[in-house]
Amino acid sequence: MDALNIAIAGLGTVGAEVARQLLHRETALGKAAGRPLILSAVSARNATKDRGFSMAGIAFEANPVDLAARADVDVIIELIGGSEGPAKELVEAALKAGKHVITANKALIAHHGQKLAESAEEQGLSLKFEAAVAGGIPALKTLREGLAANEIQRICGILNGTCNYILTEMSRTGRDFADVLQEAQAKGYAEADPTFDVDGIDAAHKLAILTALAFSEQVDFKAIPTIGIRHIAQIDIQHAAELGYEIKLLGMAEQGSQPSVQPWLLPADTQLAKVSGALNAVEYDADPVQNIICVGPGAGAGPTASAVLADLMDVCRRPEATVFGRAAHELASAGDKPPQNGYRRFYLRLKVADKPGVLSEITAVLRDHGLSVASMLQKDSPAAGSAEAQPVSLVITTHRAESMKMQAALGDLAQLPAVFETPTALPILDTDTLG
Amino acid sequence: MDALNIAIAGLGTVGAEVARQLLHRETALGKAAGRPLILSAVSARNATKDRGFSMAGIAFEANPVDLAARADVDVIIELIGGSEGPAKELVEAALKAGKHVITANKALIAHHGQKLAESAEEQGLSLKFEAAVAGGIPALKTLREGLAANEIQRICGILNGTCNYILTEMSRTGRDFADVLQEAQAKGYAEADPTFDVDGIDAAHKLAILTALAFSEQVDFKAIPTIGIRHIAQIDIQHAAELGYEIKLLGMAEQGSQPSVQPWLLPADTQLAKVSGALNAVEYDADPVQNIICVGPGAGAGPTASAVLADLMDVCRRPEATVFGRAAHELASAGDKPPQNGYRRFYLRLKVADKPGVLSEITAVLRDHGLSVASMLQKDSPAAGSAEAQPVSLVITTHRAESMKMQAALGDLAQLPAVFETPTALPILDTDTLG
Repeated sequence: MDALNIAIAGLGTVGAEVARQLLHRETALGKAAGRPLILSAVSARNATKDRGFSMAGIAFEANPVDLAARADVDVIIELIGGSEGPAKELVEAALKAGKHVITANKALIAHHGQKLAESAEEQGLSLKFEAAVAGGIPALKTLREGLAANEIQRICGILNGTCNYILTEMSRTGRDFADVLQEAQAKGYAEADPTFDVDGIDAAHKLAILTALAFSEQVDFKAIPTIGIRHIAQIDIQHAAELGYEIKLLGMAEQGSQPSVQPWLLPADTQLAKVSGALNAVEYDADPVQNIICVGPGAGAGPTASAVLADLMDVCRRPEATVFGRAAHELASAGDKPPQNGYRRFYLRLKVADKPGVLSEITAVLRDHGLSVASMLQKDSPAAGSAEAQPVSLVITTHRAESMKMQAALGDLAQLPAVFETPTALPILDTDTLG
Repeated sequence: MDALNIAIAGLGTVGAEVARQLLHRETALGKAAGRPLILSAVSARNATKDRGFSMAGIAFEANPVDLAARADVDVIIELIGGSEGPAKELVEAALKAGKHVITANKALIAHHGQKLAESAEEQGLSLKFEAAVAGGIPALKTLREGLAANEIQRICGILNGTCNYILTEMSRTGRDFADVLQEAQAKGYAEADPTFDVDGIDAAHKLAILTALAFSEQVDFKAIPTIGIRHIAQIDIQHAAELGYEIKLLGMAEQGSQPSVQPWLLPADTQLAKVSGALNAVEYDADPVQNIICVGPGAGAGPTASAVLADLMDVCRRPEATVFGRAAHELASAGDKPPQNGYRRFYLRLKVADKPGVLSEITAVLRDHGLSVASMLQKDSPAAGSAEAQPVSLVITTHRAESMKMQAALGDLAQLPAVFETPTALPILDTDTLG
């Protein structure tokens, strides 16, 4: 078969690894693809940097968008990143010019996946983004292929390695969020501006893509309520551990309700709770398979290159007519689903004045919202000899109730004069919470 | 597109579930497949048993092999089981008659996969068996699709749920193998004749298939040295736990050496060690992805049906020209690889006479074979007041050495008059044992 000509836009750690794999494993990859694979052009900020492979015979474009116009390019691998700017321009131009597109760009697909999918399908082109979700874990292919015949009930994932690393380190070392974040930044595990990671945005990008594929709906990042991990204190990790739980940031999408990104308490003996450090994991509950979990590296040059190259194999061996498993124009709109309102237990931490009547005020609010207290723990009793009573931490777990009731109660609790900070409420993922 | 006509041979728990899914989720599955799916014929021992679906409009064949001759059948799903007899006859007849074949029959593929693959490829037919390995885990699709561009270095799997259940229960309850096996049989987790499971044969069938796909070689069950779990005593589980390990039966295939099935000591904090009960797991070490683990139900009606139906989706949507990822006649022969001779630590338990000089005899044998003792523990000191010295258990861990050296030492140790039973030696899977 004819050779496939490939262009890579962006030669950071991932782009350089994809290039090295294409060049150094040319024979093996060509055999797997069923046709020769030729790296014909690249674009990068720096044309001359040594990236561990020879640029001989590879065309260089200073402007990545110019790759789309090249006659010697069949597939463009977009590894620039960002939901707007050159990445978006390039992908749009590539599809317009009749090139297949492979990208690792979760922000681009989360924001513009629907339009790009329509454009690709109109032209009969592949638009693939396995590397955009959970790095080396074939999370999308598992949905499309392995679980192809299943009705997905729930997808639940540890989708951001930085957050999981921070939470794991907080748990392992007893240190505070800010301290561990600083260390993660020093080690290069977290960005100088950590917002995308620690505020859950990156996880929400990935969840938007997973949700679209799982439930055959339009990708819709804006429809995902997102809470990150900045408010998780060391005391929360400790209380959770005492209660037999780990705190994890989960992206969760249940059939028929809004997906969400937020921290959860997970029973410590579950497979997902044991996923530590920078690893990612995706758990699928589906009928008839029941439950499958995949764990692996969520980032890094090698794992991401593995996903990019798997997409390249697909483009060669088994091109698909649809981007999201069903024709893009047939996908349901995602925006009109009700919020998750699972019937769950909750962990609640409040900073309250240490004076008579406060407990009764708080429990009255909970009662008025139909929330029943399962356990209560008061910590930080005032230091002996201090002049005034210090605020104390109050930790409550509730019996099961609809999430909405807790939302409403939180609003009222925050209004109480004896409550000093925004209360922290985390849902508890009991093993039978499903549905 | 034209409807696809399907026949199911064997209506046990899995066959009945596949039939129910096809009938009760007809619209959803047809949409996913891109064409209508029609269950046109079945074969089973009992024609009239109520299996939770209506037989109206479905032809019944008393002899499964007759399904192959039916003009109203495009795909045959073989769920009879067994490497010989009607299952083999049916699959051969089906391929000869131009029908695609989907099977969950690991024994059939492990023994006859090469010939059947050649036959299918000659005819341009699909022969698919995702359900034969690790039940609901898409273990084969992960190799073929998700890791399509990787060079596989090692596959390591918990491939038999019965063994994993027994080992987990031994660890959890402190009971002996025979006792837990009996309970597993009573609960239906183990067969009346448990040989295929507890002697590792079932795991070896699955490993033979995984190995063929991972390394592009001919399926060869006979090339897999197989040791089961009958010899694992409660004392081994306890010693392993004290040393920080769990004992698991693993199927392991490393690039360039013979695959094997045997019990291993795994560090208790690894993901694989935490796979408990009847679950299965497959771990892939590969370049460039590094490491991926998938965990899920290894058996059961729903999970197995999920895998069977995923194969059916593939037959409809993305038929492949090859059965093992490369043309069957191009696959390398598997038989001539050297045995695994990893450089590893070992756990060794001996029952020895409690008398002077025995320790020195044993350590001399180890020394002569180049095995260096890392730790030693003597247990079961003679009951106070017993007339004679009782044999004692001696537990030794070694420093790293090539597996062959331990094999040779075991032969010599068994010859010592002071050694009373066949010594138990288990390799230790340290996290950096790879390669």
